[in-house]
Amino acid sequence: MVINELKFSRSDIQNISSYERRMNDELKEGEIGYYHLPDFGYEILNEISKFKNRTEFKKVVLIGVGGSSLGVKAVYEMLNPKIPLVFLDNIDPFDIENKLKDIKFNETLFILSSKSGTTIEPISIYKYILGLYKPKTFENFIVITDIDSKLEAYAKQNIAVFNIPKNVGGRFSVLSAIGLVPLGLCGVDTKKMLDGALSCKKQFLEEGDDTILQKAYHYATHKNAKINVLFSYSTRLKSFNDWYVQLWAESLGKKRGYKRVGLTPVGLIGSKDQHSFLQLIMEGVKDKTVTFITLKDHSSAILVPNLSLKNLESCDFANSLYMGDIINAQARSTMQALLGENISIDTISLDVLDEWHVGFLVYYYELLTSAVGLMLGINAYDQPGVEVGKRILKNLLSNK
Amino acid sequence: MVINELKFSRSDIQNISSYERRMNDELKEGEIGYYHLPDFGYEILNEISKFKNRTEFKKVVLIGVGGSSLGVKAVYEMLNPKIPLVFLDNIDPFDIENKLKDIKFNETLFILSSKSGTTIEPISIYKYILGLYKPKTFENFIVITDIDSKLEAYAKQNIAVFNIPKNVGGRFSVLSAIGLVPLGLCGVDTKKMLDGALSCKKQFLEEGDDTILQKAYHYATHKNAKINVLFSYSTRLKSFNDWYVQLWAESLGKKRGYKRVGLTPVGLIGSKDQHSFLQLIMEGVKDKTVTFITLKDHSSAILVPNLSLKNLESCDFANSLYMGDIINAQARSTMQALLGENISIDTISLDVLDEWHVGFLVYYYELLTSAVGLMLGINAYDQPGVEVGKRILKNLLSNK
Repeated sequence: MVINELKFSRSDIQNISSYERRMNDELKEGEIGYYHLPDFGYEILNEISKFKNRTEFKKVVLIGVGGSSLGVKAVYEMLNPKIPLVFLDNIDPFDIENKLKDIKFNETLFILSSKSGTTIEPISIYKYILGLYKPKTFENFIVITDIDSKLEAYAKQNIAVFNIPKNVGGRFSVLSAIGLVPLGLCGVDTKKMLDGALSCKKQFLEEGDDTILQKAYHYATHKNAKINVLFSYSTRLKSFNDWYVQLWAESLGKKRGYKRVGLTPVGLIGSKDQHSFLQLIMEGVKDKTVTFITLKDHSSAILVPNLSLKNLESCDFANSLYMGDIINAQARSTMQALLGENISIDTISLDVLDEWHVGFLVYYYELLTSAVGLMLGINAYDQPGVEVGKRILKNLLSNK
Repeated sequence: MVINELKFSRSDIQNISSYERRMNDELKEGEIGYYHLPDFGYEILNEISKFKNRTEFKKVVLIGVGGSSLGVKAVYEMLNPKIPLVFLDNIDPFDIENKLKDIKFNETLFILSSKSGTTIEPISIYKYILGLYKPKTFENFIVITDIDSKLEAYAKQNIAVFNIPKNVGGRFSVLSAIGLVPLGLCGVDTKKMLDGALSCKKQFLEEGDDTILQKAYHYATHKNAKINVLFSYSTRLKSFNDWYVQLWAESLGKKRGYKRVGLTPVGLIGSKDQHSFLQLIMEGVKDKTVTFITLKDHSSAILVPNLSLKNLESCDFANSLYMGDIINAQARSTMQALLGENISIDTISLDVLDEWHVGFLVYYYELLTSAVGLMLGINAYDQPGVEVGKRILKNLLSNK
C-alpha cells in the first residue's frame, strides 16, 4: 500500500477540477504516450522472456544516458535484483575504464539504449566497446531505440532491437522497453511493476482521488517555495531521487512565452542528510517544500543490541530498537520539526520496496509532474534548452 | 595548478577589502580552527604511520555520519587509494547489512568517528558491530573524537584514539584526524594533501589573491540567484559535490536575528547531468549561479575509435577523440550556452585529481564558505537548526 498524506491545506475543488478535466483530455487524446504504458507494457514481457531463454549471461552492461539510464538505475537500486547491472552513463574515461575492469565479455549482455538513436555519448561509448572486445557476433547485444531511428536502421541486420513508442519521452520511459528490458533481464518481476503502476493509474485517474492534483496545485501556485525537496528515508532511494531530479527539472524548467518558469528539485537521503541539508531547510530562507518517503518494512530486521557502554550511557535510549524503527522515528521527528517552522510537507509511506510499490511510485511521480506542468502552463514533455549546448559541442569538435 | 576564472564582473575593491580584513582577523584570533589545519596536520601523520606499522588490514570500515564521513568520502572517491574504505554513514538497516556482507572481521580496521562523541547513529552502529563480531581485543579499532569527549573516556582504556581540535567543526574537518587518519591508512598521500591546502592558504590569505572574496561577494549579494550549482565534470567528484552541499547548506542556512538567510547548493555531474538539470538552468527561473569544475588530465587516455557505423555517420564527429577531450568540450559548450543566457558562471580547472589538487580544492571551498558567511552576517560554524529534531527523536524513542 502507498499512502500519501498532505500536511498542508487543500485547495477548493473548483481550482482543481478544471485541471482534472485537462489531464483526462491529455490521457484520452493519446499524444502523451507514458500514460498508457502500464496497459501496453505487458506485451513486451513475452519478447523479453524469449530473449532471456536464448542467451546466457551473468552481468548486464547498460550504455545509456539521461532518460535511458536514470529511471532504470532508480528501479535497479530500489530492488537489488540478482543479476548485476553496470551503468555506462557518462562519457568519463576514468569511469568507463573502471567499470569495465571486471567485465568478462562472454558472460555479459550489452544493452545500447538511446531513444533518438544518435545521442553522441552512448554511440561513442558503444564504439569503444566494439573497439575493445571486437565481437564477432552480436548475440549478447541488444539495442533499445525509437521505431525507425537511425540506430534501428544500423542494428536491425545483426542485433536484437526493442522499440519504445515515439510519444514516450526519455524521462517518462521507465515502464517502456527502456526500463522493462534491462530490469526484466536482471531478474526484476516487471509484471508486478506494471501492476503497481496500473493501480496508481486507477486510483488517481479513474477513481478520482485528487491527492496528486492537490499537491501539484500547492507546488505550482506556492508564492515563495520554488524548491521542492524529496527527503527519502532509505539509502536504496538515492537513484530514485536522481531520477526525480531529472523528471522535475527537465519537465518543469521552461520558457512560457517570455517568462521563465520552473521548480527546482533537490533529493536528500534520510536520516544521513539531517546532518547536511536540514539546517538550511529549518533556518534558511523559506523557499522549500518537503516530501518525505518512508518505508514501513526496511527488508532487514537488525537491532541495536542492548549494550550499555561506559561513559556513553546517554546513547542507551536507542538500545534494543530495530534500526528500521529508528530511521522511521527520525523521519517523524524531522517532519515535526519542519511543521513547527510552518513549512509545507507531505509524506509518502510505502509498505515495502518491492516491484509493485516501485511501479506505483514511478507512475505517481510521472502523474505529479504532468499535473504541475499543466498548472504552470508549459509543455512538460520537451527539452528545448539543451539543444543549444549540443550544437555548440558539435561545432567545437567538428572543427578540431 | 588550480585556475579559478570568474566570468562575471568583479566588484569595487572597497567592497571587498573590509571583508578581507575581517577574514584575516578571524584567522589571527584562532577561534576558528580549520584555518590552521594545513599547518598543524603534519603532526598527526607520524602517529598515523606508527599505527599503520602496528596492525595489518585489507579493508577499512568507517562508522561516521555528516561531517565525519562526507569529506572523507569526497577525498576517497577523488583519489581511489589502494585499500577499500567502506562507509557506514546511515542508520539504514538494509544498507548496513549489505555493506557488512563481505567484511572479514580479522582483515578489517574499524574506525568510529564522532566529533561530539555521542551522536546516536554512529554509536548505535558501533554497538551493532560489537554485537555482530564480539571482538576480544580492540587492536583493529580506532576512535576519532574531540578531546575529553565521552567517547574518548569510553575508548581510552582499550582503543587507539585520535583527537580533533575542539574549534574545528565537523564539516570543516577533512584536513584534521577525521580525514587524515582513514585516508592515510588507506594509502592516500596525506602530506601532499596538506601541501595543497597550504598552497591555497598562501594564495588567498597571505598573498592577497582576491578571487575567492570576489566570488563570495557576487554570491552573497546577488539579488536573484540564491541557488548555487556546482557542475563537476568528472564522475569521481560525485561525493565532493555531496560534501560541498553539506558545507554550504549547513554553514549558510541561518537565522540572522529574525531574518532567514541562506544559499541553496546543488551538485551536478557533467556531462551526464546535461541530460537532467541543465534544461532548468537554461530556461527556468534565473535563480542560479553555476561553478564548473574541470580536469585537464582525466587519468585515462581512452579514445573513441575511428569507426563509422552504417546509418550512424552523423555521430562520426567524435571519432578518434580522447574521451577526456570530449567531456571537456562538453563543459565548454555548456559554459557558452549559459553565458548566452547571461547566467553568472565561474570555472575551476584542476590539472589532475591527485592529493595536492584535492587538498587545494577542499581548502578553497572552506575559505569560500567562510567568506560568504561573513558577508551574509551569520555564524557559518554552528548548526542550531538541527537540534530540535534531535530532541524530538530522543523523546519519541525514550517513550517507546
